[in-house]
Amino acid sequence: MKNHTSTLDIVKASKSKIEDTDFENLTFGKVFTDHMMECDYVDGAWQTPKIKPYGPLQLDPSAKVFHYGQAVFEGMKAFKDKDDHIWLFRPDENFRRINRSSERLAIPAFPEEYFFSALEELLKIDKDWIKKGFGNSLYIRPFVIATEEGVSAAPAKKYKFMIICSPAQAYYSGEVRVQFSEKYSRAADGGVGFAKAAGNYAAQFYPTNLAKDAGFQQVIWTDANTHEYLEEAGTMNIFFRVGDKLITAPTSDRILDGVTRKSVITLAEEFNIPLEVRRVKVKEIIDAAKSGELKEIFGTGTATVINPIRGFGYAGEKYELPKLEDSYAKVFKDKLMKIQYNETEDKYGWRYAVK
Amino acid sequence: MKNHTSTLDIVKASKSKIEDTDFENLTFGKVFTDHMMECDYVDGAWQTPKIKPYGPLQLDPSAKVFHYGQAVFEGMKAFKDKDDHIWLFRPDENFRRINRSSERLAIPAFPEEYFFSALEELLKIDKDWIKKGFGNSLYIRPFVIATEEGVSAAPAKKYKFMIICSPAQAYYSGEVRVQFSEKYSRAADGGVGFAKAAGNYAAQFYPTNLAKDAGFQQVIWTDANTHEYLEEAGTMNIFFRVGDKLITAPTSDRILDGVTRKSVITLAEEFNIPLEVRRVKVKEIIDAAKSGELKEIFGTGTATVINPIRGFGYAGEKYELPKLEDSYAKVFKDKLMKIQYNETEDKYGWRYAVK
Repeated sequence: MKNHTSTLDIVKASKSKIEDTDFENLTFGKVFTDHMMECDYVDGAWQTPKIKPYGPLQLDPSAKVFHYGQAVFEGMKAFKDKDDHIWLFRPDENFRRINRSSERLAIPAFPEEYFFSALEELLKIDKDWIKKGFGNSLYIRPFVIATEEGVSAAPAKKYKFMIICSPAQAYYSGEVRVQFSEKYSRAADGGVGFAKAAGNYAAQFYPTNLAKDAGFQQVIWTDANTHEYLEEAGTMNIFFRVGDKLITAPTSDRILDGVTRKSVITLAEEFNIPLEVRRVKVKEIIDAAKSGELKEIFGTGTATVINPIRGFGYAGEKYELPKLEDSYAKVFKDKLMKIQYNETEDKYGWRYAVK
Repeated sequence: MKNHTSTLDIVKASKSKIEDTDFENLTFGKVFTDHMMECDYVDGAWQTPKIKPYGPLQLDPSAKVFHYGQAVFEGMKAFKDKDDHIWLFRPDENFRRINRSSERLAIPAFPEEYFFSALEELLKIDKDWIKKGFGNSLYIRPFVIATEEGVSAAPAKKYKFMIICSPAQAYYSGEVRVQFSEKYSRAADGGVGFAKAAGNYAAQFYPTNLAKDAGFQQVIWTDANTHEYLEEAGTMNIFFRVGDKLITAPTSDRILDGVTRKSVITLAEEFNIPLEVRRVKVKEIIDAAKSGELKEIFGTGTATVINPIRGFGYAGEKYELPKLEDSYAKVFKDKLMKIQYNETEDKYGWRYAVK
């Protein structure tokens, strides 16, 4: 994976913006580093990747991404350890997933050697943007968009694969309460829910706004057919702790195969936490909340790592979760971050050194 | 509707591209007229619409349309009659629908007076691009995209509403055969299938490619829950003629409320064609095909008007439809086009004069 032979065109920015950046007061995903990676697909092939100064794209108004939503993305993070070494966390998972997403949206696969050589070079050039300290990271956003001109509803013949990077502190602030969806849906069987397809996200904004109006920060989506089963939160997979047992929904063509999710599943075994990967009934979670057996709900995702949920709403009722000293959420988050920041052993080989 | 008071900024192109355009050999949606309409949403309001020379957009790589698919569109046509008058067909339906689509994707509604004044002015400026003759038209593509910079997964605060126009001949060439979907889905209950959301289209490309590999041109989507009911074709609503009776699926949160579809429903009554708007079982269509009662299948949509289907595939079997002299498809297409081109009475008030 690290034996790169592909060429790479590099044009450096004449001046860095880093001095103008307040790293103590970052809004998530608003500030970008000095450089970006851009690679065009034309004439049936991905061309030489370019690293160049971060700046605007010029696209025809008829570019297919604007009309038919042919766009997929990934979310990753780079971490800097105490010795100024830079680490990625399971980047092979993100690489494979963006190509799975692309396949489902009829976008050509991106070559592995281009992805890793360009990403690592980009991180080295913008390494000063990665700040040390637990919680600090560089959020990395690889994405692909259809750039071909023309409004006929067919897959494009031209694409852009890009990587942009944004310095990040912790993603969420404040307590998070979620609403279990009773009417709206995120994904259909046989649809694109498992893909990080751009259109999956826009579809969630309106129902999420309704949930916000009702006093919640996010929605936990239920299955579109019956709304009886809890699936995922749109930007996070979801885990439920009932008694000492952890439960999470299986991945499917509706549910994203989250990297943090699968890492938590592995760690649960290491920690001897009983875990069931199976469909989760709304009713069983409500019953567990009422009987006091529901101890925790938390979300997992690259941006948030582990996001504890303080309470939830369903069918007009609101439920609060207990405040635990020894929460699973805390245990997993601590372990994952220690792995990510090179502060503990990495027995699964999840860390990836950027050298 | 036609009493416009809004202002409009107009910058004309220095040189027309019309002489370079071969109107006898147009590829659908590839060539655009000299001008376009652009209107920005910033600071909580739509600003003054602009008509300006057709040209590229400059967007930040983090613009939300690229990452979260906040994008909706419409398809309309302008027609020129024998006396050089320009007509639209039920544009109020498209205007209302783009705002319904926008609402579902958390995009602010566009003002009616801006839409009509800017569209009509654009058509007048580019009127030479609308060619006379049955089948010739100007395809009009209004669309909205989220332009705000930043990769946090939340509705944008900045948008662009645009109208671009492309001269068109007939949309489909050759015979069209469709595959009834058995596995893949277009939309979920509680999802965005009823909206002209960009992401709905990208999601169809991969299954449509599989159908093409199997010898079909399009997919007729079935309901995601059971795949037992026929819904729509993604860019067309679908009608089935069994004996003398016409059947089409009801609109829902999964099925687009097509303008051509609803016009056909109205005309069916005028023509005394028995019509049932109800769920259509795959099984009843297969049975009708086997017994010889299935006479026609046709799609309806702005680009194609009425698109006769020659055959279909399901569960590994292929079915051919009879060639009828007196097809409903032909009757509807002829009537609709005569209304569109101002060659017959317009008793429903569907024509809209651009003056």
